[in-house]
Amino acid sequence: MPNLVAAAQALQDKLITYRRDFHQYPESGWTEFRTGSLLAKRLAALGYQVLIGEECQVAEERMGLPSASELEKHYQRALEQGAVPEYAALMQGGLTAVVGILECGPGPVLGMRFDFDAVDVQESATFRPGREGFNSVNPNVMHSCGHDCHATVGLGVAELLMSHKDQLKGTVKLVFQPAEEGVRGAKSIVASGILDDVDYMLAGHVSSGAPLGYLHTGRNGMLATTKLDAIFTGAPAHAGGTPHGGKNALLAAATAVLNLQAIPRHSEGATRINVGRLNAGTGRNVIPDKAHLALETRGATSALNQHVYDYAIRVLSSAAAMHDCGLQILPMGAAQGGVSDPAFMEIVSRVATELGCFHHIDNNPSDGGGSEDYTYMMERVQQKGGLATFVGYGGKLHTTQGEESGGHHTAEFDVDEGCLAPSVALFAAIALDILK
Amino acid sequence: MPNLVAAAQALQDKLITYRRDFHQYPESGWTEFRTGSLLAKRLAALGYQVLIGEECQVAEERMGLPSASELEKHYQRALEQGAVPEYAALMQGGLTAVVGILECGPGPVLGMRFDFDAVDVQESATFRPGREGFNSVNPNVMHSCGHDCHATVGLGVAELLMSHKDQLKGTVKLVFQPAEEGVRGAKSIVASGILDDVDYMLAGHVSSGAPLGYLHTGRNGMLATTKLDAIFTGAPAHAGGTPHGGKNALLAAATAVLNLQAIPRHSEGATRINVGRLNAGTGRNVIPDKAHLALETRGATSALNQHVYDYAIRVLSSAAAMHDCGLQILPMGAAQGGVSDPAFMEIVSRVATELGCFHHIDNNPSDGGGSEDYTYMMERVQQKGGLATFVGYGGKLHTTQGEESGGHHTAEFDVDEGCLAPSVALFAAIALDILK
Amino acid sequence: MPNLVAAAQALQDKLITYRRDFHQYPESGWTEFRTGSLLAKRLAALGYQVLIGEECQVAEERMGLPSASELEKHYQRALEQGAVPEYAALMQGGLTAVVGILECGPGPVLGMRFDFDAVDVQESATFRPGREGFNSVNPNVMHSCGHDCHATVGLGVAELLMSHKDQLKGTVKLVFQPAEEGVRGAKSIVASGILDDVDYMLAGHVSSGAPLGYLHTGRNGMLATTKLDAIFTGAPAHAGGTPHGGKNALLAAATAVLNLQAIPRHSEGATRINVGRLNAGTGRNVIPDKAHLALETRGATSALNQHVYDYAIRVLSSAAAMHDCGLQILPMGAAQGGVSDPAFMEIVSRVATELGCFHHIDNNPSDGGGSEDYTYMMERVQQKGGLATFVGYGGKLHTTQGEESGGHHTAEFDVDEGCLAPSVALFAAIALDILK
Amino acid sequence: MPNLVAAAQALQDKLITYRRDFHQYPESGWTEFRTGSLLAKRLAALGYQVLIGEECQVAEERMGLPSASELEKHYQRALEQGAVPEYAALMQGGLTAVVGILECGPGPVLGMRFDFDAVDVQESATFRPGREGFNSVNPNVMHSCGHDCHATVGLGVAELLMSHKDQLKGTVKLVFQPAEEGVRGAKSIVASGILDDVDYMLAGHVSSGAPLGYLHTGRNGMLATTKLDAIFTGAPAHAGGTPHGGKNALLAAATAVLNLQAIPRHSEGATRINVGRLNAGTGRNVIPDKAHLALETRGATSALNQHVYDYAIRVLSSAAAMHDCGLQILPMGAAQGGVSDPAFMEIVSRVATELGCFHHIDNNPSDGGGSEDYTYMMERVQQKGGLATFVGYGGKLHTTQGEESGGHHTAEFDVDEGCLAPSVALFAAIALDILK
Repeated sequence: MPNLVAAAQALQDKLITYRRDFHQYPESGWTEFRTGSLLAKRLAALGYQVLIGEECQVAEERMGLPSASELEKHYQRALEQGAVPEYAALMQGGLTAVVGILECGPGPVLGMRFDFDAVDVQESATFRPGREGFNSVNPNVMHSCGHDCHATVGLGVAELLMSHKDQLKGTVKLVFQPAEEGVRGAKSIVASGILDDVDYMLAGHVSSGAPLGYLHTGRNGMLATTKLDAIFTGAPAHAGGTPHGGKNALLAAATAVLNLQAIPRHSEGATRINVGRLNAGTGRNVIPDKAHLALETRGATSALNQHVYDYAIRVLSSAAAMHDCGLQILPMGAAQGGVSDPAFMEIVSRVATELGCFHHIDNNPSDGGGSEDYTYMMERVQQKGGLATFVGYGGKLHTTQGEESGGHHTAEFDVDEGCLAPSVALFAAIALDILK
Repeated sequence: MPNLVAAAQALQDKLITYRRDFHQYPESGWTEFRTGSLLAKRLAALGYQVLIGEECQVAEERMGLPSASELEKHYQRALEQGAVPEYAALMQGGLTAVVGILECGPGPVLGMRFDFDAVDVQESATFRPGREGFNSVNPNVMHSCGHDCHATVGLGVAELLMSHKDQLKGTVKLVFQPAEEGVRGAKSIVASGILDDVDYMLAGHVSSGAPLGYLHTGRNGMLATTKLDAIFTGAPAHAGGTPHGGKNALLAAATAVLNLQAIPRHSEGATRINVGRLNAGTGRNVIPDKAHLALETRGATSALNQHVYDYAIRVLSSAAAMHDCGLQILPMGAAQGGVSDPAFMEIVSRVATELGCFHHIDNNPSDGGGSEDYTYMMERVQQKGGLATFVGYGGKLHTTQGEESGGHHTAEFDVDEGCLAPSVALFAAIALDILK
Repeated sequence: MPNLVAAAQALQDKLITYRRDFHQYPESGWTEFRTGSLLAKRLAALGYQVLIGEECQVAEERMGLPSASELEKHYQRALEQGAVPEYAALMQGGLTAVVGILECGPGPVLGMRFDFDAVDVQESATFRPGREGFNSVNPNVMHSCGHDCHATVGLGVAELLMSHKDQLKGTVKLVFQPAEEGVRGAKSIVASGILDDVDYMLAGHVSSGAPLGYLHTGRNGMLATTKLDAIFTGAPAHAGGTPHGGKNALLAAATAVLNLQAIPRHSEGATRINVGRLNAGTGRNVIPDKAHLALETRGATSALNQHVYDYAIRVLSSAAAMHDCGLQILPMGAAQGGVSDPAFMEIVSRVATELGCFHHIDNNPSDGGGSEDYTYMMERVQQKGGLATFVGYGGKLHTTQGEESGGHHTAEFDVDEGCLAPSVALFAAIALDILK
Repeated sequence: MPNLVAAAQALQDKLITYRRDFHQYPESGWTEFRTGSLLAKRLAALGYQVLIGEECQVAEERMGLPSASELEKHYQRALEQGAVPEYAALMQGGLTAVVGILECGPGPVLGMRFDFDAVDVQESATFRPGREGFNSVNPNVMHSCGHDCHATVGLGVAELLMSHKDQLKGTVKLVFQPAEEGVRGAKSIVASGILDDVDYMLAGHVSSGAPLGYLHTGRNGMLATTKLDAIFTGAPAHAGGTPHGGKNALLAAATAVLNLQAIPRHSEGATRINVGRLNAGTGRNVIPDKAHLALETRGATSALNQHVYDYAIRVLSSAAAMHDCGLQILPMGAAQGGVSDPAFMEIVSRVATELGCFHHIDNNPSDGGGSEDYTYMMERVQQKGGLATFVGYGGKLHTTQGEESGGHHTAEFDVDEGCLAPSVALFAAIALDILK
């Protein structure tokens, strides 16, 4: 095997430049016109076959899409911030997925997923990115989950693999996924069929909590989840004059909130339910005619999540019926429960050991508690007989001021960029190992 | 007009005997085999045409019927306590209504209602009836609403009218109604058609709160009401081992209780809702699979009551659906809102004034807040173009110990029996006035 | 008595001009810097002693005050729209009450209340005001309850009384009240003591539903009411990772909503409760740490309202305790139940009859169902032994297009300005009658 | 080691006789006067030092005690059914614990727990015990959890150890525990201090689901639990006449039920909450003034159970306060979470292997989901530095009719009595091994 660690390290300055550029211009799910078009341009420049938008995703399967006017506003914003017009044009309306394909004759097909959307958080102006001038210029949007790094690693891997393509036998598909936050994007890519021939599926996530050099070769504790909005519609009336005249959507909603939370525990594994947001009513003296709930269900397996979801739908529809209200259910996101394949974890472990740049390799799948829609990709590949895993690598930052990076989704999130090159090396080495 | 006051007064000893006998052997709704058969026997002895059970009521329209075994148990109890076997036999299964008819040629038809069931209360052993030895011998049953007096007055009126029958032109129907408590009986009598030709409908109620000599000529404040039981049926499961395995009927019931109570107020008049009783579940560690609610709705008008009832049914069925439970609704009683006809009230007022035995006559309809199923009879007669009213007469007791009679439905309820003869005189005089 | 009808009619053009100016520049409660300063300027010009802001109201007793920045924004807006700077300066921070006093030697003290704030409604651009060019220039604010007319009538009365001041013996206090909508303003004026010596208290309200020439001399059906906001504060947590870690303010709020609505009915009179608005939570996957309720209680009397209010506070504080949340209660408005004095109604009736410009005078107090904080003024005057009433006069509009004016608080509200002069005449005539 | 299997087998007929006698006269917790006094008599006859009632339990620490009249009734019933008067006398008032002590000089102290109460179930008359004439003669009480076998094994062990006492060095304490059902009895025994010097603590449970010859050497999955009753006390009122006059205990209870069920899940382990029974109210038309809830909390650890319990108490007390009701909390039972010590499990495994009468020995602690108050004993011994375990042995019955025994707590529960002698041998062998 070639010295991929050295080759990746040679790209490190470029990787940092990419990462800081993405970090400075973060974009929420389905509005990543700038990031997406730059990724497409660079993949094309390296010689990859590039699929964009409906070429690699099904529009109707996208979830939690912003309004058309919001999408258009961001499209213009992205163009002003340097989006590549010819590629962005293909992404209009929120079709921001990008796939780069490298075919090297017969052999296995390896898919790698890199997500690139940001989180709705206002970045700190005084933490390291702020002090060094690459903090977010977009209000209330921030790369506080490390997807800027993931996209960067994806570009690094693309470059390294292209330069070693004569050592590859098979096909590599580099899948750049939008809208992972809120678990909204993966399903639309899977639905396109682009992964149907994949034999090995790989993705990774940087951790601001684990130190440089740590590697988890798999992950299990991803809860299956469904995100949905529920909208109760009643009828208004003057609360003093005709209290009986309305249809009280807030009564329906309050009944739903209590009964959703009261969905029984399940003895076969962890389940979750949360109504995270409720907005109802208008004037103080008007029977509330509308109530909007944002909620989510989770389960240790897809079946457990489905059990809670089915119960929740029954609660919502019965609560609406109880107060003679209408009900609209809007799907807003979903992820499967996912389990890494031990056989793929062994490959990762062996390759990482050979590389020598990870000093702490953990083969017990980590257990997080959160959810990831990469699980849709894992499930599809596993259903077709392939193997999948989801690795985690450490990137804990210690600044010169003695600070540590904040947790994921906080305003002080940042990573030690020293994690970039080893991750590029790892992904590339796995590709060379599998497609050898 | 003959001197009816004197004639009634001559019956006073007999009236007291009747009343104390009824008082000593009180019988709950639909189990009045003793009281009913005695009434039938005496009416027949006086020369009345007597209708019993299905001759004057529709079995299927009875509400809140006890179980067959309970009915049979009371049938035997009544026979032991002196029921008249040949009449009681016609009442088996709870068909305890009795009507006495006196036809005196062409002329108006006058109906008079006398109810004769008792209340589920344990009588005090130390109040006047106890001290004088005529308190209830039946545990947890007591004439604490004065229906013993009503039945007695009915017998007195029957005797007086029969002795004045040559002065009557028309027909008198003396309707002895069972199961007024819980508003369960009147509807089944109305359904028989026995009142369809009635031109004037009259009933009265003794009050333990108003003094002797007081007379209210009409009453309006009777709330329409519906009594119902709701039974939720789920599925049990071990609460520790399979908390998700059951269908929790208590969750459904608790949701129903809160939302029933939350049915909005109505600006057009008074409404009421009450879940008076809830029994749910078995073992502490078992998901409750059954919940039984006893509830009632009320409204200042039948329409307002219907509005609340319809809402309540929607709440109950939605709460059941919410937790995947079955629901059974059992009708347990009903009464209409009722309004006395001013034209009939004027007749009552004039006749009472002429009699001279009521010193305080109030022509503003009284306003009670409770419910009465005599309203079914009022409604039927009024719908056919007839007139109806519901009078009240004072019977407040002052014992030689200086006590006063307790309120209706209490263990110390009793009346000044001096109210009996004047009431008999009043009813008879009204009959002679209308059928003159 | 002088011919006040003719005198008022002579002012009619000026009244229409005033009214349309106020209509075009409507201002929400506590932001009436333009309207208030113009009223003050005109009262001063007529020769009245003028009290402004803290001279006639207690700042701390104002309820439902906008934020300081909002107040400042509207202060600037008002200056741009023609507020009188020297008077507006005295109103900064939302002290917009204005009182004009005319002292004419010894004699009774007569108070008259005119309210002048607008409603948060977007006016129709196509109804009569829009077609004739005097519709609101301020977005989402509109005189859709007729307070523009009330302020105009107040100015007309001020002019007429000043020109007849040699016929007055006593004192007139013209109270121009801000923030009647939401019943937020009257209490702060009463608290200043300005009404403590008033013997007769009068106010009026135009009705878009009753025709010109109709007069109600009193009103009873005003529900006492309390407006309040309740804010539950819990603690956030990740709903997937640490569902037990938060304190769920939405659970507390939902429990409160159901139990508030379930506060029992009262047999002594109408009561109301309404949670008109609930906003809770932030992210879908975060335990909601905050919930904001806007609610109100009402009762046919102040005691009934207090009963509901006390129960509501207990529900709110218990719901907070149940889920370990903090609770903040913010008073947002209040009005008493109010009953017109028949003695004053007789004066109004007699004077109106003498004037001859009202052809339909109704002395049965009207019964609305809504609430009015003028009741605070009535109560204070009545407690001190004075008399108070609240009259209503018809102003239904029939446009040349054959439309009718919309209901109060709708986008098509408008009145027939023919109501202005007769109202001015009535108020002035009552003053001359009482202070003769 | 002596041939304990053969020695136990020699007792088998006596064991079956004991077991069937206990089975025929089952007694609920705290009323085991017959079973307890027979156990005491037999232990004394064998030569054991016998402690009874307050000699080995603290009266105040008993939970879920029946009423005094109930206890007295069962005391008389037991005497009629053959209780030993001199021992039963020491148990009056429900002090039914019995401990047999055998001191054999210096050495370790070994405690063995055998529970002997029955379950409130009506036994099938047609299953094997019924067909063979040893089914329960006490209505609604049945040994359907195998405690008849446990008590029998305890007597067998007592006999075997006494006959081998010269081979023992140390002390054996045979603890016969009442009231294990509802987890009510162990705490009162632990509180007496009788286990404070125990070095090894052992108990066993027969399983009707596992076949003969199966042995689990330990158990972990016992959920800590707390059983409690909550009684809300309000005030009654007539629901039609004064709906505002009561204090509605059912509203408080319904609010509690929903919010108890809505206590958030915990990410650190399983939790449970169940309101198994609710009885509230009296008459349909009366505001319910009382509500009685039977509930329980559980947790995978004592800390998790305590977390749920603390939340539940807050919900209950807040729900009471919300509707102005009083609240009484009655502790009804409790058990700790318990974990078997691997070191003791190894001893059990080795001894069982040597005995040769268990063909399937499982050293992975089993995981049930239920609760056991033997955990109080485990905890006390472990806190003092001792070792504890809880073994399970198979006893699945196959009748000659081809039936299998029913599950625990069912009417068809029964066991293959072939399990008795091997269990006696195992317990005795462990004693000889530890006290050798």
